[in-house]
Amino acid sequence: MPSRERLHAVFEARENAGPAARGVRAVIVTLIVLSTVGVVADSVPGLAASWRALFRTIDVVAGVAFTIEYALRLYACTADPAYAHPVTGRIRYALRPVMLLDLLAVLPLFLGLLATEMRIVRVLRLLRVLRAAKLGRYSSALGVMGRVVRARSADLVATVSLVVALLVLASSAMWMAERDAQPDKFGSIPAAMWWAAITITTVGYGDVYPVTAVGRVLGACVAVFGIALFALPTSIFAAEFLEQFRHRRETPARCPHCGEPLDAAPQRPDEGEGVT
Amino acid sequence: MPSRERLHAVFEARENAGPAARGVRAVIVTLIVLSTVGVVADSVPGLAASWRALFRTIDVVAGVAFTIEYALRLYACTADPAYAHPVTGRIRYALRPVMLLDLLAVLPLFLGLLATEMRIVRVLRLLRVLRAAKLGRYSSALGVMGRVVRARSADLVATVSLVVALLVLASSAMWMAERDAQPDKFGSIPAAMWWAAITITTVGYGDVYPVTAVGRVLGACVAVFGIALFALPTSIFAAEFLEQFRHRRETPARCPHCGEPLDAAPQRPDEGEGVT
Amino acid sequence: MPSRERLHAVFEARENAGPAARGVRAVIVTLIVLSTVGVVADSVPGLAASWRALFRTIDVVAGVAFTIEYALRLYACTADPAYAHPVTGRIRYALRPVMLLDLLAVLPLFLGLLATEMRIVRVLRLLRVLRAAKLGRYSSALGVMGRVVRARSADLVATVSLVVALLVLASSAMWMAERDAQPDKFGSIPAAMWWAAITITTVGYGDVYPVTAVGRVLGACVAVFGIALFALPTSIFAAEFLEQFRHRRETPARCPHCGEPLDAAPQRPDEGEGVT
Amino acid sequence: MPSRERLHAVFEARENAGPAARGVRAVIVTLIVLSTVGVVADSVPGLAASWRALFRTIDVVAGVAFTIEYALRLYACTADPAYAHPVTGRIRYALRPVMLLDLLAVLPLFLGLLATEMRIVRVLRLLRVLRAAKLGRYSSALGVMGRVVRARSADLVATVSLVVALLVLASSAMWMAERDAQPDKFGSIPAAMWWAAITITTVGYGDVYPVTAVGRVLGACVAVFGIALFALPTSIFAAEFLEQFRHRRETPARCPHCGEPLDAAPQRPDEGEGVT
Repeated sequence: MPSRERLHAVFEARENAGPAARGVRAVIVTLIVLSTVGVVADSVPGLAASWRALFRTIDVVAGVAFTIEYALRLYACTADPAYAHPVTGRIRYALRPVMLLDLLAVLPLFLGLLATEMRIVRVLRLLRVLRAAKLGRYSSALGVMGRVVRARSADLVATVSLVVALLVLASSAMWMAERDAQPDKFGSIPAAMWWAAITITTVGYGDVYPVTAVGRVLGACVAVFGIALFALPTSIFAAEFLEQFRHRRETPARCPHCGEPLDAAPQRPDEGEGVT
Repeated sequence: MPSRERLHAVFEARENAGPAARGVRAVIVTLIVLSTVGVVADSVPGLAASWRALFRTIDVVAGVAFTIEYALRLYACTADPAYAHPVTGRIRYALRPVMLLDLLAVLPLFLGLLATEMRIVRVLRLLRVLRAAKLGRYSSALGVMGRVVRARSADLVATVSLVVALLVLASSAMWMAERDAQPDKFGSIPAAMWWAAITITTVGYGDVYPVTAVGRVLGACVAVFGIALFALPTSIFAAEFLEQFRHRRETPARCPHCGEPLDAAPQRPDEGEGVT
Repeated sequence: MPSRERLHAVFEARENAGPAARGVRAVIVTLIVLSTVGVVADSVPGLAASWRALFRTIDVVAGVAFTIEYALRLYACTADPAYAHPVTGRIRYALRPVMLLDLLAVLPLFLGLLATEMRIVRVLRLLRVLRAAKLGRYSSALGVMGRVVRARSADLVATVSLVVALLVLASSAMWMAERDAQPDKFGSIPAAMWWAAITITTVGYGDVYPVTAVGRVLGACVAVFGIALFALPTSIFAAEFLEQFRHRRETPARCPHCGEPLDAAPQRPDEGEGVT
Repeated sequence: MPSRERLHAVFEARENAGPAARGVRAVIVTLIVLSTVGVVADSVPGLAASWRALFRTIDVVAGVAFTIEYALRLYACTADPAYAHPVTGRIRYALRPVMLLDLLAVLPLFLGLLATEMRIVRVLRLLRVLRAAKLGRYSSALGVMGRVVRARSADLVATVSLVVALLVLASSAMWMAERDAQPDKFGSIPAAMWWAAITITTVGYGDVYPVTAVGRVLGACVAVFGIALFALPTSIFAAEFLEQFRHRRETPARCPHCGEPLDAAPQRPDEGEGVT
């Protein structure tokens, strides 16, 4: 197998990666974990003073490694027929969300070389923590989850719009019910939205809660609606996971009439591309 | 296609709306969002003073647009065979819940023209926030969810009655356990119901909680029962979503080799009407 | 149809109750709701003083009606072949949990006739609130839920034992982590159990929470485990509901080899009795 | 049946245990419960002083019984072909997680014989509470759950890594948003992690919460993401439970008329080994 194809397989193939690919991945995952631990520890005032040199070293080593990884991905991507063109293929590949995430994760290193004391750079350097999200690229189980979420993205968007509508309605109603009793906490609809968000998600910190009778009845109804609303995506995910599990298993099913294997693809014309 | 049928399709067709319909919908959705943002921002004391003119303009423009939309819907509805009669068909159409909601969303504008300073009008104007709920009319994913919720409405009613029964039993028991220790918080069963509602939904603000040993054991049991109770509708939704997904996919299922239908349809005679 | 059979059908038949049965049920459900509202309102000090006579009347009327209902059920139960014997059949019928619940709901009336001022009687009179739970007897949707819960009762018991084991382990560990820092809140394992119960159920009142680093890591893990644990029964319910829905629909399925309808019963020998 | 095989069946067979096995199990379960209650009660200062002798007796009796159980399991395990070798089979059997748990549960007794007053021993004695977890070995419903969790362990690991990534990202972002406003509560990323963990799990004690506008928007988003994230494993469990229920039922499925198997087994070649 030529070098470019092998490189591409090392970074992109999910199922049948060889021992070399597994080794490279183990190194990258280790660097992601080390670098994330470094950023987290660097935020603790006491630790930061004593261990600055170590954190800085980890940061630079991981940054260089991720830069090399980024460059190699960009070099090898033309092995994929979908990105075969040397220039436009690479540009389209670089604009995929996961590649932009990878770019954001290495940028702070180079900005840090220019000026380490500017406040904006210190803020940008925290982007390194995004490297933790890179872990997902190396898990095949996350691939199935991503497929489920994508297959049901329209339902997710609909759920989010329902949550937003409930948020607006609940906070408007609660603002009317409580603004006289607690003007400091329910003084405007945006202020009441903080209460609504924390109640719909059933977090319930307890810093803001209704005290009037009308407000309490409203609050209880909002909590119940919140639970019902979040039951919808759970249900949709469950149904979709089952379809995915089942589809994989049913592939060798045969027609009871002619005995030919049933090619599953024509049965689901609308989902066929994502489930191979 | 004659004008009335086209208008009706613009407002009602979910799946195969043409470019004109999509344009009209985009305008309406934009106006809904703008108008909702306006109502929310108008409630913030500082913003309201500076931007009153803008909020008022948005409010009037959106109100006029929604009035026109309401009138056109009412004019075009006779294109639907179910509401074909010019008078009684239109009245029945106007009494559908979504049309009543639309009416409630434009009413405050006209009330506001009569008298802007009366307190009752200020309260009614908040109904404009209901326009946020109109968003649901333009999402096809919400159509599937609505179908699932309707198909299982009897189960939902049963769950709600179980929740109410648990609420009454839990608050009565907690009233007996805690009324001597915390007479200000558990002084009556209705007062204890606030605790019960916030515990069953697992919100747990922390403004009211049991302090006696008996009350704490009771409280823990109520929380566990609450979770179990809300697991029921989630389960029922999940099962129903799966049935809906599966039915859609199984309808065109034919053996690709011999062309025989793999007859899934005759297996579910009782659900055939609702899922076309 | 003879009188006893009709009476029995009025009270017990779920699906095909005639108009007389529906009328009787509407009366009983109204009385349950009124009587429950009465008990709840009676606990409010202000209301109790002004409306005592009304509450007392509702209480006596509902009590007498439920006593008659109880007697009629006991009289008519011999129409059911399973309880055909005039004496032993009736005793076995009276010992069913729902009948014992009905008895508990009418007992306070007669105890109240003997002595209204004794404290024990006042406590027992609260049992009237149990009438709210009687509502479940008149909902057919609850019948399906009850069947699902019974079919998976072994799994529910297993989940409860897991929850208890997690409770004991979590509170023991937290007691060791926090007893020195907060001796008033984590002074013993039973005291720590209150924290564990409120955390596992994700209620989180905020009256007790860990403050040490070890305690906080433990607390976060316990919360995650709690969610995972309560995900199990939700999943099991969902799977069982789907089986129940599907079983009902698949009844007319036919064998692809010989074309005979597939009687569903022999396929599920272990569940066959409960799903007719 | 020879003695060793019978002993092995008493401890390991899940489904068809005879009356002797059920008796032995009842004794062990009783001892586990008694011993756990003893450890819990021993932590209450008042109780510990009065009942020390009783707690100590229970502890020793249970410890001796569990030691005998452990020894008998080790003696009898060679009846299982997988652990047939007298030495290496027994060592591999002793290294299984459940056997290590059993060992941990009896160790404190022997350490306590050596020195009862050393602090480390007192800590180790709490390991006796792990005996509560032994209960799981004697429930067949937990067997199904364990199979489901094992079958989806890769998905669980992926979910945990997503939770950890969300935890790191959320606490980093919140640290940046709130460190100036609340330096005592959000002074470092690890400190903010406590907030993030309690919010993602929707426990929401209320000891730490954002107060700035940016922090509140972030907090609401984190809570919503947390719910969505925990919906994934629930969905996966639900789908897998359904597969397990279905597989068990489909195995003996034959057309009752022509006797032909309705071959469900060949449809799922990849799961065949784990569900017998």
